[in-house]
Amino acid sequence: MVPGPTNVPARVMRAMLRPIINHRGPEFKELYAKILENAKYVFQTKGDVMILTASGTGGVECAVSNIVQGANKILVPNFGFFGERLRDNIVAMGGKPVEISVEWGKGVTMDMIEEAVKRDKDIKAIALVYNETSTGTKVNCLKEIGEFCDEHNLLFVVDAISVLAGDYLPVDDWHIDICIAGSQKCLMCPPGLSLLSISEKAWSVIEKSTNTFYFNLKAYRKYEKEGQTPYTPAIPLYFALDEALKMIKEEGLENSIHRHRICAEAIYRAVESMGLVPFAEEKFRSNTVIAIKYPPKISDSSFREILRNKYNVVIAGGQGKLKGSIFRIGSMGLITQAEVLQVIGALNMALSDLGFEPKFNDSISAARNVFSREVK
Amino acid sequence: MVPGPTNVPARVMRAMLRPIINHRGPEFKELYAKILENAKYVFQTKGDVMILTASGTGGVECAVSNIVQGANKILVPNFGFFGERLRDNIVAMGGKPVEISVEWGKGVTMDMIEEAVKRDKDIKAIALVYNETSTGTKVNCLKEIGEFCDEHNLLFVVDAISVLAGDYLPVDDWHIDICIAGSQKCLMCPPGLSLLSISEKAWSVIEKSTNTFYFNLKAYRKYEKEGQTPYTPAIPLYFALDEALKMIKEEGLENSIHRHRICAEAIYRAVESMGLVPFAEEKFRSNTVIAIKYPPKISDSSFREILRNKYNVVIAGGQGKLKGSIFRIGSMGLITQAEVLQVIGALNMALSDLGFEPKFNDSISAARNVFSREVK
Repeated sequence: MVPGPTNVPARVMRAMLRPIINHRGPEFKELYAKILENAKYVFQTKGDVMILTASGTGGVECAVSNIVQGANKILVPNFGFFGERLRDNIVAMGGKPVEISVEWGKGVTMDMIEEAVKRDKDIKAIALVYNETSTGTKVNCLKEIGEFCDEHNLLFVVDAISVLAGDYLPVDDWHIDICIAGSQKCLMCPPGLSLLSISEKAWSVIEKSTNTFYFNLKAYRKYEKEGQTPYTPAIPLYFALDEALKMIKEEGLENSIHRHRICAEAIYRAVESMGLVPFAEEKFRSNTVIAIKYPPKISDSSFREILRNKYNVVIAGGQGKLKGSIFRIGSMGLITQAEVLQVIGALNMALSDLGFEPKFNDSISAARNVFSREVK
Repeated sequence: MVPGPTNVPARVMRAMLRPIINHRGPEFKELYAKILENAKYVFQTKGDVMILTASGTGGVECAVSNIVQGANKILVPNFGFFGERLRDNIVAMGGKPVEISVEWGKGVTMDMIEEAVKRDKDIKAIALVYNETSTGTKVNCLKEIGEFCDEHNLLFVVDAISVLAGDYLPVDDWHIDICIAGSQKCLMCPPGLSLLSISEKAWSVIEKSTNTFYFNLKAYRKYEKEGQTPYTPAIPLYFALDEALKMIKEEGLENSIHRHRICAEAIYRAVESMGLVPFAEEKFRSNTVIAIKYPPKISDSSFREILRNKYNVVIAGGQGKLKGSIFRIGSMGLITQAEVLQVIGALNMALSDLGFEPKFNDSISAARNVFSREVK
């Protein structure tokens, strides 16, 4: 139950056992075409999609390095560890980030964006983390920022690594030029692949890039026309992604998002009933990562060790400056009522073991109420 | 039988089915420690080894981007498609390649290296492809180049993607500062991971780098001390690598190299007996990739289609300017007498189908002679 890598369905695991194929042959071409078709369904885009053999941060670097020469000054709203990482990535790639620093646990607002863009006419792009895994917060005005980017001719780059297929994200409708996802989150695949959607507007800027090689999107586009990747792809992970995307299509994207939403809501209601407090302000709460403040005197390492060893549930601690003060539950991918009730039970038991008495029955009822309301 | 990705042993495939673990937890720490220990055995190094979630070209980019700021001018002997790729990668990362252009099919000599370094005192590093997959050639003076680099205080970067564990490559003894390998070649793993060995001398140059992020070796070193990677690793591929490295250790590195050598020799002897001509000049012939010239009137696409569809053997065509004029056999990883004899049989049959009459019995005997001599 960490916020990625998430549990992988048996169907997807087994897909990795297909024999290794030649990545320059007809079988790979067919596989890649199917993956792209279904990935476009999940991104809700008619634009291009590229798949990289790299984890999410590699995908972000790909987006950044392909645009920094054409769009050097980039506005970066920052409200967590991955926002900081995005900013640092822009610096490393030679870009100039203009930061909007938001208190962790809160989110960026349209006012902040408009004001920052008004102040600095050289800003050519806005890049942000839609779903901040480190704080359990999300941007709740993504659509409006997209419309603003469209009106002001700014490129819009969205790190959606921990959320694609787990929350609303119609890439084309929301004017997102580059959207980055990771295989190991809501897409319920093993880690190792990053997916990028790319708009026509983005291509016009990417064309100017000369500073990329492994992440050179122009090379990816050229090879994709032949049903190939420019560099050897991680074939078993492509098999897994193919199977996982098929499963999402079978479930339906709307249903997948809905399932994520009710599971997250059930966890929020349950932990609140226990007497715990989510880290994120309510209106910015993530649909896929639930960050919860530790009650006084509960040690992060003891708590998570008990959960892991005694109750067989693995969750994550805090990152960066939140280390020790919060814990985080991933409610992603293969998440259902069963996992939610298991994790709530385990949280109750572990807190109890450490001398904090949560209201066990209340929390289970709170979660069950969410599910039974939704089933009606 | 393509020169990577190669067939993966069942043990290694099955290892990918282990349940996904938290990459920030104790299980991953233990896994990573075992992988590093065995990888150091294969690299024959006491230095550092880093594992990247990226294919070989990502590993090369990692090496290049981490040294170009400290060692901007790099000598690049170039005798094939991957030498060109290395040169282009250096340019993209902001370095200045000084090229030694060698006719494809031949290799670089010590004279060429010495002369080039004498001519340009600003050269700070030599980077080359040890085993050129596109032409089936290898550098036959790697040890001497390493000694030269050591004497002249040059960094020595070796792309050994298609050869580590398939030919002699004692990284420390040969003064190699950064050696790059790929998981999907002689290491008999699926593609998706790149392994780098790094010397103390290399670190002193890497320290100066500020232009990397996903491939930032300083971040990898920092996290490796905690038994982690800075970015989410492709966990099933780490499980696979762990198992494959164990298999190499069980066989013994010397035995693995010897097995590659006799299989390659058997293929060379067999194709020569058929009346075919290897592309590489004899003294530069690779131990792991056998490139063979097409006899007149044999079409690349028909030949490889017949091999694939009728005889169930997949081999590779030529790359870059060699497209259509050569074919290539990978003799890597899980290669034994059985695969060698199967591929020779299939080559004979397919050539026959296309009107070229190879000497079937001679070629099988030639291969068998190599194996029986070696068994004595």
